[in-house]
Amino acid sequence: MGFDRLIKKIRETGNPSVVGLDPKLDYIPEYLIQEQTGTGLEKAANVLLAFNKAIIDEIYDIVPAIKPQAAYYEMYGWQGVRTLAETISYAKSKGMFVITDGKRNDIGATMQAYTAAHLGSVTIDGETLTPFGADALTVNGYLGTDGIKPLLETCRAEDKGIFVLVKTSNPSSGEIQDKMLEDAPLYAKMGDLCETWGADTIGEYGYSAVGAVVGATYPEQLKELRIRLPHIFFLVPGYGAQGGGAQGVAGAFDKNGLGGIVNSSRAVMCAYQKEKCDPKEFAKAARREAIRMKEDIRNYISIK
Amino acid sequence: MGFDRLIKKIRETGNPSVVGLDPKLDYIPEYLIQEQTGTGLEKAANVLLAFNKAIIDEIYDIVPAIKPQAAYYEMYGWQGVRTLAETISYAKSKGMFVITDGKRNDIGATMQAYTAAHLGSVTIDGETLTPFGADALTVNGYLGTDGIKPLLETCRAEDKGIFVLVKTSNPSSGEIQDKMLEDAPLYAKMGDLCETWGADTIGEYGYSAVGAVVGATYPEQLKELRIRLPHIFFLVPGYGAQGGGAQGVAGAFDKNGLGGIVNSSRAVMCAYQKEKCDPKEFAKAARREAIRMKEDIRNYISIK
Repeated sequence: MGFDRLIKKIRETGNPSVVGLDPKLDYIPEYLIQEQTGTGLEKAANVLLAFNKAIIDEIYDIVPAIKPQAAYYEMYGWQGVRTLAETISYAKSKGMFVITDGKRNDIGATMQAYTAAHLGSVTIDGETLTPFGADALTVNGYLGTDGIKPLLETCRAEDKGIFVLVKTSNPSSGEIQDKMLEDAPLYAKMGDLCETWGADTIGEYGYSAVGAVVGATYPEQLKELRIRLPHIFFLVPGYGAQGGGAQGVAGAFDKNGLGGIVNSSRAVMCAYQKEKCDPKEFAKAARREAIRMKEDIRNYISIK
Repeated sequence: MGFDRLIKKIRETGNPSVVGLDPKLDYIPEYLIQEQTGTGLEKAANVLLAFNKAIIDEIYDIVPAIKPQAAYYEMYGWQGVRTLAETISYAKSKGMFVITDGKRNDIGATMQAYTAAHLGSVTIDGETLTPFGADALTVNGYLGTDGIKPLLETCRAEDKGIFVLVKTSNPSSGEIQDKMLEDAPLYAKMGDLCETWGADTIGEYGYSAVGAVVGATYPEQLKELRIRLPHIFFLVPGYGAQGGGAQGVAGAFDKNGLGGIVNSSRAVMCAYQKEKCDPKEFAKAARREAIRMKEDIRNYISIK
């Protein structure tokens, strides 16, 4: 309950970071593309899966979680979406916690369908099947409680979690999210709703199953929200490539060094390009970058 | 440009409505389930496709567009997502305009990936492929301009459109969307952003490629937004099952009876249940309901 499984893995590995698996063909070494079979979208999907598995093999013992971004799989059609399902399944077989970054949002029966798809299960001819089976899903709360409530039952029953977009990492996030209401900006109100939504799903570390996305690029807001939202676990994108630094993300964490997980995608996936090492070492370079990132963050926080 | 293709089809058919294809197994006649092959998620995906094709065959000459809801396909795994792609392709082969209801949202390169997935194309080994190929996509604007800009280039280059969530049809939509800013509620500001985003994509009917979702359940806001947002084409959910009536949706339309399209999903898909007719007539019952709905709306508006 309440991200306890994720927090235990963070404590075990001493690593409050998650690797985003957002694989574009451009990121993938040419030799690996040549090795895969098939044509068209099927070929691309096979390439993505081989790339992901190699990275997971190199990081699963030192990184608690992966965060596949749905868009990069949908870009390669249903074949790419099959790779999303297979990536999730593979990472879970290695004991990793999986956050599907889909930013899904809808209401009522439709949101129930998204919940069944990404976190739950469906029953067909009496057989219970798991379409994607992630541990957590990012969601967008613009539709209010009707869009969140359908998720909460599955969070409780199957020990899953969600991350609601609160203050996103991008430059224009303020256009809507910073709009001032009577006494606080909109993103703070969205955070308050997260506290309400998660109130009866609080786990042993004090965090609920309703987390929040808060960007590393807004360190002041991170600190402010850490105080305002004591039961909300943060997923923090924007470290590295988008300009967020380790000192800034330190504000996401509580006095025990818990309460948040920092994402890095491209810097890990493309570490071999930055290192200019042999492309065949891409997965080992990803591991080196994952370790560098962990140490960078651990310079500013200690996990109890 | 600017939903001209959709508006032409609305004028040709005299029908400002769209059929939502949100097929759950529960909605589908037992005989059709028995007829399909496969097991598990593949079987479910085959059933959904057979159901959708039969309905499309019965409505394509009288209804301008379909709106498949991504959640109901994802619920049946990548196999279900294959059915989404095949449904889109089939409807387009019959000349229908396809709105994928995915409410996608992200930023930068990730939003580009969603754009390529749902509206655009990808190039693999020199071959240009279309992963899903809808004509329009619903999107969520909570992330601001960074989440919308990546779509606009494809809207311009490939004559596609988007519908941004402005005021959604559900009871709790006000929790965020009705928050009062200095001089207007948040949803009105989101609408204003749609005007800005779409400003250079206005087509011959005066509407831009950036439409808005405004629920039939809020007729006063529909009327108010029709005046405030003169270049914004409305996708109007919530008619029928959610309680929105034809008189209320009339506010979505301009003096020429254009400017909006009203969605109905379950009432059309499940018309055979309400009619209590032979389940083998499900597609003909869907056609009868589509005609009834068109006439209901046309009692309140005339299309010029």
